[in-house]
Amino acid sequence: MIDLRSDTVTKPSEEMRKAMYNAEVGDDVYGEDPTVQKLEDTAARMLGKEAGLFVTSGTMGNQIAVLTQARSGEEIILEETSHIFLYEGATASAFGGVQTRTIKGVRGAMNPEDVRGAIRPSDIHQPVTTLICLENTHNKAGGAVVPTENMRAIHEIARENNIRVHLDGARLFNAVVASGQKPSDFAQYVDTVQFCFSKGLGAPVGSMLVGDRATIEQARVWRKRFGGGLRQVGVLAAPALLALTQNVERLAEDHANAKFLAEGLAQIPGLAIDPATVDTNIVIVNIAGLGVSETVLIDELKKSGILCGGFGPQLVRFVTHLNISKADIVSALETIQRVVRGLA
Amino acid sequence: MIDLRSDTVTKPSEEMRKAMYNAEVGDDVYGEDPTVQKLEDTAARMLGKEAGLFVTSGTMGNQIAVLTQARSGEEIILEETSHIFLYEGATASAFGGVQTRTIKGVRGAMNPEDVRGAIRPSDIHQPVTTLICLENTHNKAGGAVVPTENMRAIHEIARENNIRVHLDGARLFNAVVASGQKPSDFAQYVDTVQFCFSKGLGAPVGSMLVGDRATIEQARVWRKRFGGGLRQVGVLAAPALLALTQNVERLAEDHANAKFLAEGLAQIPGLAIDPATVDTNIVIVNIAGLGVSETVLIDELKKSGILCGGFGPQLVRFVTHLNISKADIVSALETIQRVVRGLA
Amino acid sequence: MIDLRSDTVTKPSEEMRKAMYNAEVGDDVYGEDPTVQKLEDTAARMLGKEAGLFVTSGTMGNQIAVLTQARSGEEIILEETSHIFLYEGATASAFGGVQTRTIKGVRGAMNPEDVRGAIRPSDIHQPVTTLICLENTHNKAGGAVVPTENMRAIHEIARENNIRVHLDGARLFNAVVASGQKPSDFAQYVDTVQFCFSKGLGAPVGSMLVGDRATIEQARVWRKRFGGGLRQVGVLAAPALLALTQNVERLAEDHANAKFLAEGLAQIPGLAIDPATVDTNIVIVNIAGLGVSETVLIDELKKSGILCGGFGPQLVRFVTHLNISKADIVSALETIQRVVRGLA
Amino acid sequence: MIDLRSDTVTKPSEEMRKAMYNAEVGDDVYGEDPTVQKLEDTAARMLGKEAGLFVTSGTMGNQIAVLTQARSGEEIILEETSHIFLYEGATASAFGGVQTRTIKGVRGAMNPEDVRGAIRPSDIHQPVTTLICLENTHNKAGGAVVPTENMRAIHEIARENNIRVHLDGARLFNAVVASGQKPSDFAQYVDTVQFCFSKGLGAPVGSMLVGDRATIEQARVWRKRFGGGLRQVGVLAAPALLALTQNVERLAEDHANAKFLAEGLAQIPGLAIDPATVDTNIVIVNIAGLGVSETVLIDELKKSGILCGGFGPQLVRFVTHLNISKADIVSALETIQRVVRGLA
Repeated sequence: MIDLRSDTVTKPSEEMRKAMYNAEVGDDVYGEDPTVQKLEDTAARMLGKEAGLFVTSGTMGNQIAVLTQARSGEEIILEETSHIFLYEGATASAFGGVQTRTIKGVRGAMNPEDVRGAIRPSDIHQPVTTLICLENTHNKAGGAVVPTENMRAIHEIARENNIRVHLDGARLFNAVVASGQKPSDFAQYVDTVQFCFSKGLGAPVGSMLVGDRATIEQARVWRKRFGGGLRQVGVLAAPALLALTQNVERLAEDHANAKFLAEGLAQIPGLAIDPATVDTNIVIVNIAGLGVSETVLIDELKKSGILCGGFGPQLVRFVTHLNISKADIVSALETIQRVVRGLA
Repeated sequence: MIDLRSDTVTKPSEEMRKAMYNAEVGDDVYGEDPTVQKLEDTAARMLGKEAGLFVTSGTMGNQIAVLTQARSGEEIILEETSHIFLYEGATASAFGGVQTRTIKGVRGAMNPEDVRGAIRPSDIHQPVTTLICLENTHNKAGGAVVPTENMRAIHEIARENNIRVHLDGARLFNAVVASGQKPSDFAQYVDTVQFCFSKGLGAPVGSMLVGDRATIEQARVWRKRFGGGLRQVGVLAAPALLALTQNVERLAEDHANAKFLAEGLAQIPGLAIDPATVDTNIVIVNIAGLGVSETVLIDELKKSGILCGGFGPQLVRFVTHLNISKADIVSALETIQRVVRGLA
Repeated sequence: MIDLRSDTVTKPSEEMRKAMYNAEVGDDVYGEDPTVQKLEDTAARMLGKEAGLFVTSGTMGNQIAVLTQARSGEEIILEETSHIFLYEGATASAFGGVQTRTIKGVRGAMNPEDVRGAIRPSDIHQPVTTLICLENTHNKAGGAVVPTENMRAIHEIARENNIRVHLDGARLFNAVVASGQKPSDFAQYVDTVQFCFSKGLGAPVGSMLVGDRATIEQARVWRKRFGGGLRQVGVLAAPALLALTQNVERLAEDHANAKFLAEGLAQIPGLAIDPATVDTNIVIVNIAGLGVSETVLIDELKKSGILCGGFGPQLVRFVTHLNISKADIVSALETIQRVVRGLA
Repeated sequence: MIDLRSDTVTKPSEEMRKAMYNAEVGDDVYGEDPTVQKLEDTAARMLGKEAGLFVTSGTMGNQIAVLTQARSGEEIILEETSHIFLYEGATASAFGGVQTRTIKGVRGAMNPEDVRGAIRPSDIHQPVTTLICLENTHNKAGGAVVPTENMRAIHEIARENNIRVHLDGARLFNAVVASGQKPSDFAQYVDTVQFCFSKGLGAPVGSMLVGDRATIEQARVWRKRFGGGLRQVGVLAAPALLALTQNVERLAEDHANAKFLAEGLAQIPGLAIDPATVDTNIVIVNIAGLGVSETVLIDELKKSGILCGGFGPQLVRFVTHLNISKADIVSALETIQRVVRGLA
């Protein structure tokens, strides 16, 4: 099986397993796990923030960021296909009582003037706008890198209006590698960042929330409510630390594999994709030309040893990651070509 | 002063005051106020529903409808400039924990296919869609009447997906009079309807929520939580009953006055409005041609005895109602013309 | 029928009906109803607070006070048989996300040291305590007047711990009249007070929330979410103003009637009540000696023209009010005696 | 240092580390982690339930159980010193909108008749009671084992009233070992059980929620909202599986050590404890006789190499666990005796 469903499926490497085995641990609820502390400090420093908080998932990190920075009856602005809006179970509203106001972006980037227009005036009938959420790379936009210039412009508007900004950077390091910029080049335009160790970086479990010290202290209180206060969690922090220090640069391989895949797919009649839009490790193909639904194609590919996922009507998503080699992509392209031909 | 800010500013008539004075009352928390019961029954019958619930405001009626028909962690679909989304303090999220999913409509009407596309598939990452909210007439769309055909199509999609539909009919009777249709022609396509006695119908306070008996029974429990369980509330129900039985047809005058106002405004250089878009009693004028902000114009008109309101950048709203005569409109147009000329 | 179920059943007097008829009104959402403003100012002044906010019910006033002064994830302390805890539909938790921590009181008064012990220490596992709610007179404690000394002591503890205090004074004026103290003697020990116009004071609908200006401004925002922003609400404020200025002293009659009733009931074999515990207008009788459930007695009394209510196992509550005369009590006692004898 | 603060401080054994190293893993969000599935099945079978759900903490497991079985505006009944009420950040109210109704227990056990009395009658003013939460062993009651007979009686009342029952069994296996009963002897009287792998059982991280299949399916949806949907979480499940299969019987040593410690402490002048009340691994000593606050004693003990924790005014808690030997207890008792003497 060549598993291209998501970069979340990666298995921990031998080295990561050893790191777990050897992890120095303590009770993190008492603030005594040295490995978690090292991970939180390392992450904060890399992103140019004061403090970090280890969480068990991207959803937990994003939602803690929302609840820490927006209160019940307030409104947050976010892109209409963002992960927080689409795929986190309406938690911001369910647990935090905040209303979501969405803006249609272009390749994941909201027009700063649209953001400005969505900020509420002071009026007793209307909620106060207190948070803007960005996503970079943007999953639904095919792993697009949102330019730092766009982030800067939105940040400026936020500052003028006393509004905070959170970055869902589940795949931030893909943006870092693809753009050649530093993590802090992105993080400078937001108050908090969440990023995942468990996607392209290859750790089995875990995400990080960074921000200023006061915000992270509040976030720690909310993490407790989410059930995210753990004990000897150094066993998860140890592989995450490896992920952060050793697996960043190699994301370039995933990007090259994704581009190669996209170029190959573009040659297959019935599949539509512009390889120029593939910034990182996600490839979204429109299969409308095939005359079958995405479910049919996905099932046929599965029978032939290729796993991929549906991503909306007529859309199929392929994701490259550290368990996928160039040879896998070559093989996958051959299979896809054959399967597509068979569907015609 | 000619007050064109809203149809909410109407003063109760002599007849309504007499109705309050003479109202037969009881303790409605004990279910013993005969006037409220008569009002609830009358309203339900007019809309073709089983039961009614008197509430003190449109916001209370809408929010009770949402909380009764959607639960925390679920999602509701509504038009992106709807009153529930824009002007009710994010209450659905704050009190009900529901996420708002908005769709851009045309003259207040959402495209049924857009609604279909916004319904969530069954997926553990995503909230379940449980309610669609409509608004008719649509305030932000300039009092536009949403066609019953549009409501029918959305209702059909909702039924197929086991989703309920609520109608914010704060100004439903304007739609009734403008379209020549019956209240039940609209109500047949939704599960619950809220409409106001205190806008064009001229009562001092109050709104009504109607629906099937089981839903209204649940709504009564939620009304208690909203603090809407009142005592000798027949004093409010009595004028509301008059509003419902005597003030519906006369809305046609408001519509004629609004059309006349729109035609007059269209003649004034610098003001942009297409009178053909004025379905009911709301007139929204674009003043971009004047070269001043809407605040400046509103202030100048106020000094000259005309009250109106801002409705977004460069937009000014005028609303006709039962305290406004044709002569008032004639006079208002003269004043507006003069003021606008002075601003040039 | 002699209706002793509650002081909420009073019908508006001729004078109140005239006040409604003549009420000067405006759109209160625009801040233009002069009668409401006069009522809010009068109430605030009487209680020694800066500002007032008219609400439609005691539940709305109490819950707005809670949501304005405590946030999601925080804890409030209140007496375990208080109205807010027992009879307001869990709204503080449902709409506000606050946890309720209850303390068993004696005749409605919590021991200040119990309150001190219930305040949470600073600890990441525990919610922060931000509000204490008092009730005076205390309904479940049989209309007991909670001494101002008790309120003072709790207020001092609250201040030391940076905690706010709210008074559910639905029947505060009964405490005022019974104690011979001024409303401000009670209100000085709390940040906010809610009191009702619609119970002993005899208005058809309405309550008042008072406090400092900043708190009331925030409360106004929350009132909008509760659907409590109304239009020409002067029609309710006018009778409420009469209630406040003309009906306070006469509560002494209700108290005398209640005492007389209690003394009479104490003479009836099978009924247990100590008349010395009847501070105000509420009489709670233990009927365990009758050998029938409270439901049976209530039903029998109803057949004989006396309405009263159950108040827990073996407990029956009688409430005197302005539609009940001394002669009614005399008559009621005769009936009760006869009915009880018949049950033996 | 002899660390007696909590059984949460245990370090994973060599064998557990090897289990992590060798864990077979998959993406559990896709339902593909075989080790987690084995753990969930094993746990469910041991407790006699249909299905299990791995969660990262006891708080997460408890709160998911509450939110799955009670809705916003409903009420849950729980012991007034239970962990869910005291130490979980008011999450049931904050995230779930449920009101907490507490009952004072005796050694952690609520009187079934008190539970019956706390169930709400059907009344529009009152929340519906939908869940009762038990705790066994009971932490605040000094690790007391709540008798299964008590659980049976409460369960019966719950069934009669159509109310669900959840067991916070963070230390259920201590109750199992101390009572000689089977896990299912306890679990049979409740709908859901949460228990921890990370306390006496010695795993680094993790808890389990078990119940019927439909409830666990719903719980899985809520777990997503809590951010508890993880990826290759078999690395945590592997040591948890060892904990469950190998570390249960050895809890008897912790209990013997605790009893020995209690007997020793009872001999020290100024310390009050009845060793007969020590059912399991928790020892709570009243130090009122010392004339110093618990903070002073804890600090002095820390300087001498003994870690323990405050547990309320004048109360100090010691907890035995798998990293504590009989020799540690002997040594600790000597030190405590010396320190206490020094404080005199």
